[in-house]
Amino acid sequence: MEDKFSVRTDLALESYQMNKDSNLDGIEIKTQSFDDIQVTIVKITNANGEKKLSKPIGNYITIECPKLVKNNVKYREQIIKILSDNINKLLENKKHDNVLIIGLGNWNITPDALGPKVISKVLVTRHIKNFIPDELKNSVRCVSAISPGVLGITGLETFEVVKGICEKTNPDLIFVIDSLAARSSSRINSTIQLSNTGISPGAGMGNKRVALDKKTLGSEIISIGVPTVIDAATLVNDTMDKILDAMRDACEKNFERDFLDTLNNIDSMQKYSMIKNILDPYEENMFVTPKEVDEVIERLSNIIANAINISLHNSINLNDINRFICK
Amino acid sequence: MEDKFSVRTDLALESYQMNKDSNLDGIEIKTQSFDDIQVTIVKITNANGEKKLSKPIGNYITIECPKLVKNNVKYREQIIKILSDNINKLLENKKHDNVLIIGLGNWNITPDALGPKVISKVLVTRHIKNFIPDELKNSVRCVSAISPGVLGITGLETFEVVKGICEKTNPDLIFVIDSLAARSSSRINSTIQLSNTGISPGAGMGNKRVALDKKTLGSEIISIGVPTVIDAATLVNDTMDKILDAMRDACEKNFERDFLDTLNNIDSMQKYSMIKNILDPYEENMFVTPKEVDEVIERLSNIIANAINISLHNSINLNDINRFICK
Amino acid sequence: MEDKFSVRTDLALESYQMNKDSNLDGIEIKTQSFDDIQVTIVKITNANGEKKLSKPIGNYITIECPKLVKNNVKYREQIIKILSDNINKLLENKKHDNVLIIGLGNWNITPDALGPKVISKVLVTRHIKNFIPDELKNSVRCVSAISPGVLGITGLETFEVVKGICEKTNPDLIFVIDSLAARSSSRINSTIQLSNTGISPGAGMGNKRVALDKKTLGSEIISIGVPTVIDAATLVNDTMDKILDAMRDACEKNFERDFLDTLNNIDSMQKYSMIKNILDPYEENMFVTPKEVDEVIERLSNIIANAINISLHNSINLNDINRFICK
Amino acid sequence: MEDKFSVRTDLALESYQMNKDSNLDGIEIKTQSFDDIQVTIVKITNANGEKKLSKPIGNYITIECPKLVKNNVKYREQIIKILSDNINKLLENKKHDNVLIIGLGNWNITPDALGPKVISKVLVTRHIKNFIPDELKNSVRCVSAISPGVLGITGLETFEVVKGICEKTNPDLIFVIDSLAARSSSRINSTIQLSNTGISPGAGMGNKRVALDKKTLGSEIISIGVPTVIDAATLVNDTMDKILDAMRDACEKNFERDFLDTLNNIDSMQKYSMIKNILDPYEENMFVTPKEVDEVIERLSNIIANAINISLHNSINLNDINRFICK
Repeated sequence: MEDKFSVRTDLALESYQMNKDSNLDGIEIKTQSFDDIQVTIVKITNANGEKKLSKPIGNYITIECPKLVKNNVKYREQIIKILSDNINKLLENKKHDNVLIIGLGNWNITPDALGPKVISKVLVTRHIKNFIPDELKNSVRCVSAISPGVLGITGLETFEVVKGICEKTNPDLIFVIDSLAARSSSRINSTIQLSNTGISPGAGMGNKRVALDKKTLGSEIISIGVPTVIDAATLVNDTMDKILDAMRDACEKNFERDFLDTLNNIDSMQKYSMIKNILDPYEENMFVTPKEVDEVIERLSNIIANAINISLHNSINLNDINRFICK
Repeated sequence: MEDKFSVRTDLALESYQMNKDSNLDGIEIKTQSFDDIQVTIVKITNANGEKKLSKPIGNYITIECPKLVKNNVKYREQIIKILSDNINKLLENKKHDNVLIIGLGNWNITPDALGPKVISKVLVTRHIKNFIPDELKNSVRCVSAISPGVLGITGLETFEVVKGICEKTNPDLIFVIDSLAARSSSRINSTIQLSNTGISPGAGMGNKRVALDKKTLGSEIISIGVPTVIDAATLVNDTMDKILDAMRDACEKNFERDFLDTLNNIDSMQKYSMIKNILDPYEENMFVTPKEVDEVIERLSNIIANAINISLHNSINLNDINRFICK
Repeated sequence: MEDKFSVRTDLALESYQMNKDSNLDGIEIKTQSFDDIQVTIVKITNANGEKKLSKPIGNYITIECPKLVKNNVKYREQIIKILSDNINKLLENKKHDNVLIIGLGNWNITPDALGPKVISKVLVTRHIKNFIPDELKNSVRCVSAISPGVLGITGLETFEVVKGICEKTNPDLIFVIDSLAARSSSRINSTIQLSNTGISPGAGMGNKRVALDKKTLGSEIISIGVPTVIDAATLVNDTMDKILDAMRDACEKNFERDFLDTLNNIDSMQKYSMIKNILDPYEENMFVTPKEVDEVIERLSNIIANAINISLHNSINLNDINRFICK
Repeated sequence: MEDKFSVRTDLALESYQMNKDSNLDGIEIKTQSFDDIQVTIVKITNANGEKKLSKPIGNYITIECPKLVKNNVKYREQIIKILSDNINKLLENKKHDNVLIIGLGNWNITPDALGPKVISKVLVTRHIKNFIPDELKNSVRCVSAISPGVLGITGLETFEVVKGICEKTNPDLIFVIDSLAARSSSRINSTIQLSNTGISPGAGMGNKRVALDKKTLGSEIISIGVPTVIDAATLVNDTMDKILDAMRDACEKNFERDFLDTLNNIDSMQKYSMIKNILDPYEENMFVTPKEVDEVIERLSNIIANAINISLHNSINLNDINRFICK
């Protein structure tokens, strides 16, 4: 946290909505609706869009379903389908022969364990690829999967572990799964963001310092993230803003112009020092998450693992593959 | 959460400090200092004190050590000693022959897993008591230990499980270990509260509905809790209060009496509706916790388990006991 | 282990097959086949049958499917159906209003963790029963579920914990899930035993000392067990018997009558002392299990949890229930 | 398993003891005793020794303590000291600046989880090395640590993960921790083998296919292993041999020369087919382990992690380091 506080969101959609600028050069938006599920595609097409949304050029698909917060079987099936369809769209029918799935995050912290949980549920086939009969070979992709852990546990940068494995195994497609931070509580655990841009430094719950993207890893990359926390500092900041806005409204209504000036003079430094004071001694190191985070992470990891399995393997033959895999 | 919001703290010390009333009828305070460790004893002695601090009559010992947040070996040894000394004081040299240790909380949620983690580390002897040689029998107490889980996982009230076990095994001393909610971030993971009053409904991270105390369980009870979270609604409320206080100061300094009235007219209903709006759809169901919560819970559970082991068994012979126990 | 060694099996079917006696007074056998799945019902009907098979009077349904050892999706669905159908038969269309599911075993030892894993996957409804709308009430039963742990971890007898909970919550039906020991490696992880007799002392991987049955707990009981291990002493004993049998055959073929006497004179004491010597210092405390035990326990716990969920709740409305449950 | 069965042991000491050949060209033995602890150093010095013991040239230090099987605090401290002293001897006072610790094995299978458990307990410093004050820098080594998982979980060869990390981080010393298979039950969980030769293909509980050694990884390597299992096929084979030996003794005593011929004619093929038959359908894929394996793995991982911590960091300053590390 520098001397000036900046709100934290890993969602391109939130960045877009926070951006009040009407000039949308470099940004394209499309939306679709399915019952209670909303899909929004944010395309960042040039450097101007990158700068405005603080995200690299690429496609960001946001699937929003408030019902995800509850254990709703009906929506689960539908979201798995929407997610796998959108993965397939990003893959553009390319035939990838060697897929690596990376589950980022700390398995010891419930809301950060999404990535490792997905890894424990995806179908891994690379070690049995040579034993699969010819007639099934076209329906099964070669998949490996690993959770590299976090810097505080291993002393290793995520990038060092992932890059090392890439150089040894040469995947042509990489999935990266991560827990994200959102700004708004209404998005926590109800939103899945899919993109073809990889993970940038500082995204996710931990502190990545090197990007995991096509440029650094040398392979196509698809990242899937779910906001599971709000940064506590962001929550405190937004709470202040809300009450200051309420004050401003009151001032204007009551023609108390003098005090409006006072309010408008509260600068970011003052607010930042108040945030630090409220969260002392943790400053930027606290997060906010729902009490039922354990159940939701379990469900979300099932949804994402299922969608990946369906996208990567020919689902018609999935039973046959399963039968073969554990021979 | 009812229509009027009330701040949440499980610490008697915070209740006391929040209480601006100068009439201390029913409350006694004592403090001690050891290097960077502060011990405060709050005694609630009558119904007046109970009402004022919203806690039952009894002794609440708060051990505060800001260094606990870090992995500081030096302080760890000292805190284990202070904690076990204070447990012994509460036990008043009574000889308990049959001790049951209960670890409350949800093992799937990192900051709520303190109780279960302590259970996995205390010395359990009840099943081998009959095999211990006579010369060691006076140094070893009969100890059993269980984590009953939480209502959302088992469908059982904690009280139903614990009371059932008590009726079958008749312990004469019960320890209850729990994760607590504090109001101030500076107390998170740096404070241990020890009391002889049991756990009241609503205390801890979950939603206990029946008290676990001497009256309901029929045995002496010692509870040990560490605040590992802040209720998100409490954090948002306190943030609002802080900024409103800052406004009030500004108003008074600038003689803006009119606006001061406006500020003072913001009632609890308005604030509560703002809190609900900010945390929607989670309302009272979010918590705030530090990012390194996994490491801290590990350390704190070691400290508490060690202190209990030292209090219950004659430490001079602890090696001999250990040698015997796993024969 | 007493001075005379006795082979260990928890399967009534194995007891029956080991019994060479042709007098079947007190024992009835029925078999059914579905593709590669074999269902055998052993009914013990009187004290004579009890004595012969060392199991209490009752029905023992054994579902055998060698393909279970592999991850075979096709058979999985079929076994869930056969298992839930047989649970329903044992329930005899009685309407139980309050079901308790008990997962026996040690969650820290992979092949003993079957019970606790099932508990983590069954649908628990008791705490939300009052919130379920009237139109769904007939399709949902009130279910609670707990893993009581093992004596070595808690210092508490399984019976003490379970009996206490029963007295507080008065279930009218109890499920007990446990890991079993078989005699033959071909049955490990490929067989599910279902019975209406509860768990007797010494059954399962651990050392239960009090029966969990209708008489001791006061409710209907259904036990579901899977043999996940062979007792190492039983394996060593059976290996000896096999080689001795081979010797005997050789002797008879070669008319070496003298040595046949020698062989026949090897008494159980000598064999037992050899077993102790081979397994020293562990004697009866070692078990044998397959290397892929982690994957198989995961799959088997899914199968059993699904079968219980389908038996207890009206599956047509299972989606609606799910939708409601996490409201 | 090929058509001829070969017994499985990962301990050089057992290989040596199984070797009845009196020609010790290429093998040197030294022993030391400390109370109930026995230390044996097997040095393999040339190709002849390699062939005879089926282990590569190098030093194998075996620390045997039967009391390790029990929770004996007295021996624990002593073994930590002996282990760290012997690690230091293998390090020959070289100053390694960058240490990588690898925990092999499957964390989901209790006796194979030793490596991952050690990883969770060693002091990791690489990520904070730059923040350590100058006066402590000489007492702290830069350490990273990772559990790469097993082929069946990740689809990645252990070597691919480890080699990749080595190329990115250039450690000058690598520790490899693994669960081993012994031949004799008396060595299970009571023996620690330390060597400077790395891990060869097929060693440990899993199926490594590429060696992790100085040649393949390019760094000094120290491996620490504890036998936690016996291969079930080896146990069955040895049981057969014992009873055949007993028969042979009986034959010789009774002058039954004819049958002695019969016994001696039982060839390895016949024995191997009997082993396959007894363990069907698992063949070489079963292991034998003690029932208390969970507690022992916990204790052994503490011992090994402590010994490594003491060897790598200046223990006098260990408190200061700890204080700093979590700043």
